[in-house]
Amino acid sequence: MIYNFSSGPSILPQEVFKKAAEAILDFEDTGLSILEISHRTPQFEGVLEEAVHLVKELLDVPTGYSVLFLQGGASMQFSMVPANLLAQGQTAAYLDTGIWASKAINEAILYGKVAVVASSAKDKYAYIPKEYTLPEKCSYLHYTSNNTIYGTELFACPQVNVPVVCDMSSDIFSYKIDVSHYGLIYAGAQKNVGPAGTTLVIIKDELIEHPCRKLPSMLDYRKHRDNQSMYNTPPVFSIYVSLLNLRWLKRNGGVEAMETLNISKAKLLYDEIDRNALFKGTCAVNDRSRMNVCFTAVKEKHQELFLNYAEQHNISGIKGHRLAGGFRAAIYNAMSLEGVQHLVHIMRNFESIYG
Amino acid sequence: MIYNFSSGPSILPQEVFKKAAEAILDFEDTGLSILEISHRTPQFEGVLEEAVHLVKELLDVPTGYSVLFLQGGASMQFSMVPANLLAQGQTAAYLDTGIWASKAINEAILYGKVAVVASSAKDKYAYIPKEYTLPEKCSYLHYTSNNTIYGTELFACPQVNVPVVCDMSSDIFSYKIDVSHYGLIYAGAQKNVGPAGTTLVIIKDELIEHPCRKLPSMLDYRKHRDNQSMYNTPPVFSIYVSLLNLRWLKRNGGVEAMETLNISKAKLLYDEIDRNALFKGTCAVNDRSRMNVCFTAVKEKHQELFLNYAEQHNISGIKGHRLAGGFRAAIYNAMSLEGVQHLVHIMRNFESIYG
Repeated sequence: MIYNFSSGPSILPQEVFKKAAEAILDFEDTGLSILEISHRTPQFEGVLEEAVHLVKELLDVPTGYSVLFLQGGASMQFSMVPANLLAQGQTAAYLDTGIWASKAINEAILYGKVAVVASSAKDKYAYIPKEYTLPEKCSYLHYTSNNTIYGTELFACPQVNVPVVCDMSSDIFSYKIDVSHYGLIYAGAQKNVGPAGTTLVIIKDELIEHPCRKLPSMLDYRKHRDNQSMYNTPPVFSIYVSLLNLRWLKRNGGVEAMETLNISKAKLLYDEIDRNALFKGTCAVNDRSRMNVCFTAVKEKHQELFLNYAEQHNISGIKGHRLAGGFRAAIYNAMSLEGVQHLVHIMRNFESIYG
Repeated sequence: MIYNFSSGPSILPQEVFKKAAEAILDFEDTGLSILEISHRTPQFEGVLEEAVHLVKELLDVPTGYSVLFLQGGASMQFSMVPANLLAQGQTAAYLDTGIWASKAINEAILYGKVAVVASSAKDKYAYIPKEYTLPEKCSYLHYTSNNTIYGTELFACPQVNVPVVCDMSSDIFSYKIDVSHYGLIYAGAQKNVGPAGTTLVIIKDELIEHPCRKLPSMLDYRKHRDNQSMYNTPPVFSIYVSLLNLRWLKRNGGVEAMETLNISKAKLLYDEIDRNALFKGTCAVNDRSRMNVCFTAVKEKHQELFLNYAEQHNISGIKGHRLAGGFRAAIYNAMSLEGVQHLVHIMRNFESIYG
């Protein structure tokens, strides 16, 4: 048993893998592989419909919102958001809380005026700035709820009087949210939704009724909405595996149960980081992410040593991002409490040997 | 055994399905699923590298071209092509040979001047127009080599003095081409490359050295080329299965062996359509596709009857596209001669019962 702490693409439940492998050989007793069926078959239409339904159920999505499965990851959303929502004469507000947030900003600039209302860039994104003022004629406020590279997370939706757009790629489904507070939520699937290759978008319909410019069809939310995510051939398999994962999520108590478990998992690991003399956390305690636990060795010489030690003990993927260094343990929904206990155990053993 | 004649997503070799299912449970003895490994692992980098290498080898891609695996399907290419290649003051030439060609035209119009140099739209796209003149200051000529819906195919690359851009989504790897004749070739994977979710792009580097406008990163060929298809998280699994299919292709004699087999398969089926009194072909004999064999029942009453009869005899996916009606048998590389023989056999039986 290898414990996979990779930050994305990342762990999914074992039963999801098992069922996905079965569907590749014979999808729902059709005698055909899920990889060879047309997206226009009733079978796949059923998959997509159920996936959309489960997203709505699990997040209690109010009426007036559409749920889409697109392609291109969060990076494509960085462009689609301003392309669809940033009209001439308006300004889009962005919170700069990490590399992904800053990439979103760089794409928005192509479409119009952008105000970076707050940034922690000069402090290596070690915290999430809380104080800011929105510009006049503001079209939306964009923020990244969880910063995978730096290990910070903002749980509360900002209370502002403009539509809030949130990149929830790495923490969607990990805690309860009130979708009605958001104008648009998007998430690259490859953390808490499913495998790489699809992107979940939850969008308030009224935001896209009056397009602010002519758009390429593939960048047009309305086109995707009107065609129920089937404007062109969707990423069939990625959506199917996402469905399997959403079913698993529901069977295991949904978002509320995940939130409770995620709080326990994160506390266990942060407590060890704070207790263990060989390690220390890397970001503001109040902004610590429950999904990506970033820490580092107190002594430089322990850095490589612990990476190797962990790997020898069935721990995979805890090397920190090259921009942040140190270690990063992604403990998404599919990571069990047992997996985190194992990591803590290994950290303790490491301390007893090298401390 | 079900014979899958679906036009896409479509049949892939059984051994590809088997190996793909194995990799979902344990990818190359890593103890991890292909669905949970990071795209930054040496394992996945190896997958991508080998896939690119095999494309170059199988199509004998000359130096000066880059091979990319992107997302968004051909539909995204419909926008990326003019976004990257259609400069102000220039005109892009398009051959209108079917629905997909016309969709490409509609997207190009957003970026600049477009000349539809020839069209068979008024004849229900039953043939491929051959006579046309390019406009002045022409940036490129775009055409669709195989029209899946109408069953026509253009094998010869047009001899023109501007870069040729070809949507080869449904016939790439099915016959030998000379890549040096093209400026850009693209193909949604879900026919002859792999499963839905990735798009193969082969592009002449010199075409993208001087961008003609500021582009969203995800629409910028240069950005994808400079990052070797890893600008953002790639569709890991779709690329992996494409690699499995490319390996299969190589083991089975490559593009030349496929071409010979595809000629035999198409001849067998068209001969039966022309011989059998109950069926007839739907497009110009000289433009008949080797990939999508379109035909119809001579008598309307046999239409539904044959669909049911075929389905009862293990034939799946031969219903024609709603715009064309009739029948369509997709006989891509992975469809065996035996599969086509079976279809012919069923057509003969049908004739002997209902003729």
